[in-house]
Amino acid sequence: MEKKIKVGILGATGSVGQKFIELLKNHPWFEIAELGASERSAGKKYKDAANWIMKSPLNKDISELEVKKCIPNYESKLIFSGLDSSVAEQIETDFANAGYFVISNSRNHRFDKDVPLMIPEVNAEHLSLIDKQPYKGGIVTNPNCSTIGMVLALKPLHDAFKIKKINVVTMQALSGGGYPGVPSMDIIDNVVPFIGGEEEKMETEPLKILGKLGNSEVIFENDIKISAQCNRVAVIDGHLETVQVEFENKPTKEEIIDAWNNFKGVPQELQLPFAPIKPIHYFAEDNLPQPKLQRDLENGMAGSVGRLREDPLFHYKFIVLSHNTVRGAAGGTILNAELLKAKGYLDKIN
Amino acid sequence: MEKKIKVGILGATGSVGQKFIELLKNHPWFEIAELGASERSAGKKYKDAANWIMKSPLNKDISELEVKKCIPNYESKLIFSGLDSSVAEQIETDFANAGYFVISNSRNHRFDKDVPLMIPEVNAEHLSLIDKQPYKGGIVTNPNCSTIGMVLALKPLHDAFKIKKINVVTMQALSGGGYPGVPSMDIIDNVVPFIGGEEEKMETEPLKILGKLGNSEVIFENDIKISAQCNRVAVIDGHLETVQVEFENKPTKEEIIDAWNNFKGVPQELQLPFAPIKPIHYFAEDNLPQPKLQRDLENGMAGSVGRLREDPLFHYKFIVLSHNTVRGAAGGTILNAELLKAKGYLDKIN
Amino acid sequence: MEKKIKVGILGATGSVGQKFIELLKNHPWFEIAELGASERSAGKKYKDAANWIMKSPLNKDISELEVKKCIPNYESKLIFSGLDSSVAEQIETDFANAGYFVISNSRNHRFDKDVPLMIPEVNAEHLSLIDKQPYKGGIVTNPNCSTIGMVLALKPLHDAFKIKKINVVTMQALSGGGYPGVPSMDIIDNVVPFIGGEEEKMETEPLKILGKLGNSEVIFENDIKISAQCNRVAVIDGHLETVQVEFENKPTKEEIIDAWNNFKGVPQELQLPFAPIKPIHYFAEDNLPQPKLQRDLENGMAGSVGRLREDPLFHYKFIVLSHNTVRGAAGGTILNAELLKAKGYLDKIN
Amino acid sequence: MEKKIKVGILGATGSVGQKFIELLKNHPWFEIAELGASERSAGKKYKDAANWIMKSPLNKDISELEVKKCIPNYESKLIFSGLDSSVAEQIETDFANAGYFVISNSRNHRFDKDVPLMIPEVNAEHLSLIDKQPYKGGIVTNPNCSTIGMVLALKPLHDAFKIKKINVVTMQALSGGGYPGVPSMDIIDNVVPFIGGEEEKMETEPLKILGKLGNSEVIFENDIKISAQCNRVAVIDGHLETVQVEFENKPTKEEIIDAWNNFKGVPQELQLPFAPIKPIHYFAEDNLPQPKLQRDLENGMAGSVGRLREDPLFHYKFIVLSHNTVRGAAGGTILNAELLKAKGYLDKIN
Repeated sequence: MEKKIKVGILGATGSVGQKFIELLKNHPWFEIAELGASERSAGKKYKDAANWIMKSPLNKDISELEVKKCIPNYESKLIFSGLDSSVAEQIETDFANAGYFVISNSRNHRFDKDVPLMIPEVNAEHLSLIDKQPYKGGIVTNPNCSTIGMVLALKPLHDAFKIKKINVVTMQALSGGGYPGVPSMDIIDNVVPFIGGEEEKMETEPLKILGKLGNSEVIFENDIKISAQCNRVAVIDGHLETVQVEFENKPTKEEIIDAWNNFKGVPQELQLPFAPIKPIHYFAEDNLPQPKLQRDLENGMAGSVGRLREDPLFHYKFIVLSHNTVRGAAGGTILNAELLKAKGYLDKIN
Repeated sequence: MEKKIKVGILGATGSVGQKFIELLKNHPWFEIAELGASERSAGKKYKDAANWIMKSPLNKDISELEVKKCIPNYESKLIFSGLDSSVAEQIETDFANAGYFVISNSRNHRFDKDVPLMIPEVNAEHLSLIDKQPYKGGIVTNPNCSTIGMVLALKPLHDAFKIKKINVVTMQALSGGGYPGVPSMDIIDNVVPFIGGEEEKMETEPLKILGKLGNSEVIFENDIKISAQCNRVAVIDGHLETVQVEFENKPTKEEIIDAWNNFKGVPQELQLPFAPIKPIHYFAEDNLPQPKLQRDLENGMAGSVGRLREDPLFHYKFIVLSHNTVRGAAGGTILNAELLKAKGYLDKIN
Repeated sequence: MEKKIKVGILGATGSVGQKFIELLKNHPWFEIAELGASERSAGKKYKDAANWIMKSPLNKDISELEVKKCIPNYESKLIFSGLDSSVAEQIETDFANAGYFVISNSRNHRFDKDVPLMIPEVNAEHLSLIDKQPYKGGIVTNPNCSTIGMVLALKPLHDAFKIKKINVVTMQALSGGGYPGVPSMDIIDNVVPFIGGEEEKMETEPLKILGKLGNSEVIFENDIKISAQCNRVAVIDGHLETVQVEFENKPTKEEIIDAWNNFKGVPQELQLPFAPIKPIHYFAEDNLPQPKLQRDLENGMAGSVGRLREDPLFHYKFIVLSHNTVRGAAGGTILNAELLKAKGYLDKIN
Repeated sequence: MEKKIKVGILGATGSVGQKFIELLKNHPWFEIAELGASERSAGKKYKDAANWIMKSPLNKDISELEVKKCIPNYESKLIFSGLDSSVAEQIETDFANAGYFVISNSRNHRFDKDVPLMIPEVNAEHLSLIDKQPYKGGIVTNPNCSTIGMVLALKPLHDAFKIKKINVVTMQALSGGGYPGVPSMDIIDNVVPFIGGEEEKMETEPLKILGKLGNSEVIFENDIKISAQCNRVAVIDGHLETVQVEFENKPTKEEIIDAWNNFKGVPQELQLPFAPIKPIHYFAEDNLPQPKLQRDLENGMAGSVGRLREDPLFHYKFIVLSHNTVRGAAGGTILNAELLKAKGYLDKIN
């Protein structure tokens, strides 16, 4: 058996960092060797620095690891970043400059020209942008949690029928707000119809993700017009989104369902460990998917769609569900790292 | 002091019936004299027939009333109907034929040609359709709870700038499903993205409500195209809706806010007891209105709007909130009855 | 590989019946062959008769099974009963008379003199009561969901230090009320401080379970005095209970923790498939166990205890948590069946 | 009409401070003149310093007040304190020394020998302890929110039948944890069986409140033994508590109900503005009181009791409900101030 690749996790005490730790347990390729966090945590054992909020118990070995500062003196060359956006930009740049591959869930570098904004089933070819980066190492980013499920569902439709307009309204889970996040008094018996910066991300990120790879950057898919409205609801995990689309060539309902059912991407071809067998599951029932019922499909890595019907204003409307902290954050980031490894980028560092 | 008008309530043991009873307490014009329900309840004291689920305690006098069958032998000539749609059609017709004025919250007669589908601030003039009815008495109906808030917010905009397209996604409260309604296991930590028949109502009712009064019927406002998507969320009271609109003449943001702020209808002019002072309250804050914070505005009879902003696909997007069991059901029905009285229709029966 | 034992499930469309189906998937010893339900469902395919509410998808084979009436003409000789208590008494008797082994989750036969009320870790020896039954087959029952977790935690303490008094206050999950169960409007932002019949069960069942096996019946442990108060809270799964105990011989805190940590019963010795490795997990943290965090421990078959501290009125107080629909219902019943099989009772029917 | 007494509020931006502001609106005796908060807020307009989280809108006049530092240079001589316990001790002492009457909701001075720990219906006579205080002004404190409802319900029983033992288990509302307080991810679909310091307060405060007034201090009612267990549940407002009691003289059930129904205290005799007409409302229904249904009784100032029944381990068990931020905090504090005024303590400062 091959030796596992050592990885470091930046922002290891936060909720995304903890999810990395939870999901990487028993990963066939990667093993956690180093954990980084703020100065306040550095020097402490992880179990003393972190307020562990995941459902599965904290692994003993991990709990005893000493937390390091987030400076590029790590032994692990593969770095997962769950850093807060207030500090991610510089730290990630520093690590990349120093030769590390930074697979980030933070938003700071998402729109850097030479940084791929990746959903491996959607735009695996964007990965080669890394070769254009000035860094000794590299940076790969993950889209926003509310973007990922939607674009995963739209990709096969865009390929087949070319999307012109997207209208999306979200009902997003609490875990998307981090921890402690939304106070309980604000959300029980309530909806909060605002999430700062979220609508802007949903209206722009898809244009890069669905864009064509040019010479040294992505050519944005600017022909698509997007409107997003984002709401927070009293759901623990799982973003549900109502989506309306208009195409250049209006397909039949059956063609859309076929496109979803037949959708496979590079992660499925390469059989990456975190790849779901089916990236998108279609439900014909009137009232599915629902967050509580379908969010954990394929360990939270598959998206779900349902309620497909013709729309009086667009061509079709339907709903999309995906697990925001797995597929939409830590799990998606891990899948990015798996692609990086499968494509040989990590060969020299192993 | 004038003698109060005696009213009967059909479907008095159901959740809408109970809300009628709660809201009519101390009404300046109306007093509850008779309660009607199914054969199973008839003959019992109300307190024994009904499982009282309102927050305010049941009035002693009401609790001792004997429940009657729903047949037109009532002393009260003004009848509020909260009947289930499975039985409302015939019973309401029978009462109207027998000379009663039936103010109904049920959906059965909403699209009868000669029956007004009323929101008094929006289409008070439709009330005169009653004169075309073949009944010795008459029938007036209330729109669906999710329609009312939206149309209330759209009316001043339609009058000023003529609406062409409406796109709405709802996050609806549990009380809209009646009692017992949605099982707790289905909605805690969840969203149910389907409410049977609701989307169809939202796509059709506004066309009648916003229509012009013709000779003997309403001329539907068929130039407006509407798409609706309806979801149930873990909120007790208050339907929140994201709305997008396109106009014939695109106004400025300020013009829209002015239209809302200056909006007044016949109930305000007539100072009807249940009329809110302002039918629509505009909030400039990023994250308002919210169900828990604004649903009770003006005793639940006022709608709230907020988050007005330009939209990439339509002209504008914003959110609307209204209390679904007050403004959207029993309270709206009472306002209809008040209009009927103010317009002199009840003079002969008093 | 040994051939699996065919089992039938009575009350298969209800929530306990569905949980049996979900949990028996891939069971090493048992396979579902027949499903029974009310006359209304009989003759239909299971997928048409049942409103499937479990989280895991319904197995295709099961979904196509034709639902049978609940009359003792089944091929399977091992019968799981999740019947409603309004019909369970006679049907279970009929099956037992006809030679079937009925492993029931219903309350009707719990206090029959010759029927074991079983928690296999606690009173496995009671199983031999079956030999005293007049039936050609036999009946074994499961305690109430709120009783099981508590008695599981108390058994090692009673064995070691003899319990004299038990005071328990429960905060019980919604799934304990069946489906549709508690209406959402009744429990969101609320606690319902009453569950019909529950306190009586908790005050009596432990006396039988903890009793000694006599000649032809259980000698109740009537020296123990129990007071129970039961509340329903807005939790999907997992009954949390505060427990206070007084002993004949007051142990130290460490002795109690040791008793829990070393607790093993017959299911552990026999390594029954559904037996948790540790029936009781002790947590030293101030704020554990919590329903959401610990209910799924050992697939929901292990109980959790914590917050052990001296009590001013009793000797000690602590909290107990267990998964009410797994350990406290369907899973516990399956463990009973496994014990029956391991003890040879099913040899003749296989 | 008499001129109103000017009051200052310390900790005005916190959740207790905000509740003071909300409840004092239109108070017949007091008017808010000054608001104090931390250095960070001082100098700002209140609307800019506070994140207003109350349901009723912030009064315009208040919103424009400039926040002051918490140093004793206030014009108002009556001071309400909702200060955090980390700073309350010294600041309250400073104000009292400087001649102010500090009516506090903070815990710091509750056990000072010369400071009354007041529930006006229970121990109004303790108020005279103020005369023993070394301050130019004085300090009066309010018990913990979970203590108040329980002691209010126990007072008439203790007077009539002498209580020996109290066993209490609480299910406490989220608003008791302040704002932002409990993260939503921690409590939706969950119970948190721990509230730091709460059990200790419930086991000690009643001994002082129910104590007799001695020469210069309260003689604690140390004959009563109390055990408390405290839990946080997903309820916005309203602490529900199961209570078991043993008396010196066991009364009948009817005697207990009579004691509750006839209970009146000094606030009722003096008809203080915030005094409920009945401090305790008894419910005979099986499943009442419930937080959502009864917390707002008499504007949140009345407690509710129900489910009274004999207990196998104590004499009786029942449940108590009270509104934790009204009766249990700001409202209770205001009632203390009203008593102070009615007893003439504020005459010299008006």
